[in-house]
Amino acid sequence: MELIIGGEAEKIEKRDFDVVIIGAGAAGLSAAIYASRSGLSNLVIDSSVAGGLTQEAPLVENYLGFTAIVGTELSREFIEHAKNYTKIIDNCKVQSIKKNDDFTLNTEKGEFRAKSIIFATGTKHKHLGIKGEEEYFGKGLSYCSTCDGYLFKGKKVLVIGGGNSGAIAAISMKNIVGEIKIFEFMPKYMCEDAYVRQIKSMGITYKMNVQVTELMGDGKSLKYVKYKERDTGKEITEEFDGVFVYVGLTPQSELAKQLGVELTERGFIKIDRNGRTNVPRVYAAGDVAGSFAQIIVAAADGAIAADSCYKDLVMK
Amino acid sequence: MELIIGGEAEKIEKRDFDVVIIGAGAAGLSAAIYASRSGLSNLVIDSSVAGGLTQEAPLVENYLGFTAIVGTELSREFIEHAKNYTKIIDNCKVQSIKKNDDFTLNTEKGEFRAKSIIFATGTKHKHLGIKGEEEYFGKGLSYCSTCDGYLFKGKKVLVIGGGNSGAIAAISMKNIVGEIKIFEFMPKYMCEDAYVRQIKSMGITYKMNVQVTELMGDGKSLKYVKYKERDTGKEITEEFDGVFVYVGLTPQSELAKQLGVELTERGFIKIDRNGRTNVPRVYAAGDVAGSFAQIIVAAADGAIAADSCYKDLVMK
Repeated sequence: MELIIGGEAEKIEKRDFDVVIIGAGAAGLSAAIYASRSGLSNLVIDSSVAGGLTQEAPLVENYLGFTAIVGTELSREFIEHAKNYTKIIDNCKVQSIKKNDDFTLNTEKGEFRAKSIIFATGTKHKHLGIKGEEEYFGKGLSYCSTCDGYLFKGKKVLVIGGGNSGAIAAISMKNIVGEIKIFEFMPKYMCEDAYVRQIKSMGITYKMNVQVTELMGDGKSLKYVKYKERDTGKEITEEFDGVFVYVGLTPQSELAKQLGVELTERGFIKIDRNGRTNVPRVYAAGDVAGSFAQIIVAAADGAIAADSCYKDLVMK
Repeated sequence: MELIIGGEAEKIEKRDFDVVIIGAGAAGLSAAIYASRSGLSNLVIDSSVAGGLTQEAPLVENYLGFTAIVGTELSREFIEHAKNYTKIIDNCKVQSIKKNDDFTLNTEKGEFRAKSIIFATGTKHKHLGIKGEEEYFGKGLSYCSTCDGYLFKGKKVLVIGGGNSGAIAAISMKNIVGEIKIFEFMPKYMCEDAYVRQIKSMGITYKMNVQVTELMGDGKSLKYVKYKERDTGKEITEEFDGVFVYVGLTPQSELAKQLGVELTERGFIKIDRNGRTNVPRVYAAGDVAGSFAQIIVAAADGAIAADSCYKDLVMK
C-alpha cells in the first residue's frame, strides 16, 4: 500500500480545515470526495495504513460495479480516486480532540483544527477473552487470514466464528492450508447461503455448538485448542497449527465518546439517517456507526455524512 | 442498452420468487446481488430500460472506486454485475399488486408471485406545471440533457433549475450548444461549489431569482420563454431554441401506496434505517425512499433492503 503523506506529515503547512475525517477506509474516502466536491477543505487521518478493512477482503463480489475484485486492489482504487480530492495522512493516531468553538485534534503528527469532524474509524476484530489468546497472538493466532493465512501453508488450521467473515476466511485459506475447520458457537450456519454452499462443496468442516475455552502451546507456538461441545457437554483438546479468530468487531468509538458523542449499548456511534451524532458538527459513517458492515454501505454513509456536514457549515 | 429478457418474458417458466425487486437502477440491481448471495430467489422488473437514472449522468465522478466514468458505461457495469446473480425483465410495467399471504404482481408480461417486494422504483423528473409545457414536450422541451442535448448543437438553450442536476446538464451541454443559460428560482446558487466553479470558468450564465411562467412557440416548436425577475418584478420574454427542465424529482411510489405503504408528505416511501416499510415484507431502497439521491447511496440502500428481507424470510 502506498503512503500518501506518511512520515512527511509534519511538513504540511495547512493545519485548519472545514472538516477532518478520521479513518481512511471506504467511509472516510467517500466522505472526502463528497466534502471536496461541495467545496469543504478537508483532510483524512488514519491511525494505520489507508484502505481500511476493504484491504482484508480476499475477494469482493458484492460492491456494485465490480463483479469480482480482490480487496487490496479495490482499496487501491478507492485511494486513487480520493487522492484527486484530498490529502491522506496515514500511520497517524489522533490522541485527543478538544472542543471549543471549533475542534482541535492532537495527533502524533502535530495539531490540526477543524470546524467539524467525521468519524469513519471503523471497527477492530473482537477478541475471545480466553486463556492463551494474548500469549499466542502472532505465535499461531491471528485475526486476519489475508495477512497471515499463507504462513500456514499445508498446516492444520482452525477458524473460530462461522459468520460471513469467518466463512470467507476459511474459504480463502482452503487451497493454501492442509486442513481447515470452522467452529461456530451457535447451533446453525451463521453465514450467507452462498458461503454455506462453498463450504460444503470445498469439504470444509463446519462444526456448530462449539465453545472454545483455551489456547495452549509450548510458549513459543500454539499447539492445541481446548473446547466444549455445547450440546453434549464434552470437553475436547484438539491439535491445530494455526487459529484465526472471527467473532465480531469492536467499534473504534473511544475518541467520539470523549467528545460527548452518544454510543449504543454495544459501543457504536449513534447517528440519525443523515449521519449526524448528538454533538453539533460531529458526524459518523460506516462500521463505527453500526451500519450494515458492507463496503458499499460504508461508502454511501461517507457521502451522506459529508453532505450533512456541508449543509450544516455552508447552507445554514 | 442491452435487453436482458425483454420481449421474451412470457417464456419465463419460473413465476414464484422469494423476492421481486421493482426497478433495475443501482438500488434494484444491488438488492438483487445481495438477495441472491444470501440464497433468496429473485427477479428484477423494470418498466423502462434497465440502468435507471445512472444512465442519464453525463459523467459520474463520485461513485467510490470509479474516478470518472460516463453514466451509460457505469450502468452497463452494474447490469453486467447483476446478471451473474439474477434475471431482469425490462420494459415491463407492474400494473397492480395484490396482497394475500404472499404478493401477486400483475404485469404487462403476466403474473408473478413473491414472498416479499423491494421497491427500487426511483424518481421521475418533475414538471413545471406551466402553460406550454405539455405542448412543447419533444418539440424543444426536454427533461434529459444526455438524451436530447445533441439535438441543439449550436443553438441557444436554457436549463430551468440550478441545483446539481441542472448545473450538470448545463455543463455537459456547454460545448455542444451555442449559448446556454441557467435560470434558478432561489436567490442563490443551489448546486455544489465544484459546479459553481465550473459554471463560472465555462462562462455559463446562472441567473437567480427567476420564475419561468410560460413556454411559447408556433405550435411546431418552442421559440420563447416568458419569465419574471422575482426581485425586480419585471416580466421578460426571451428567445430560446431548447429548454431543459431540472426542477426536482417525483418519487414513483404509486404502487407502494396502493399496498398500504406509508409515504412522506412529498410522496417518498417511508423506511427505517434497515429499508423496512410499515407493511411486513415490503421494503424500499434508493431515490423512491427519499434517500440522498446519489448512485452510491442507492446501491447501499439496495444491499440493506435485501439484507432485511433475508433476515425476515430466513432468519426469523
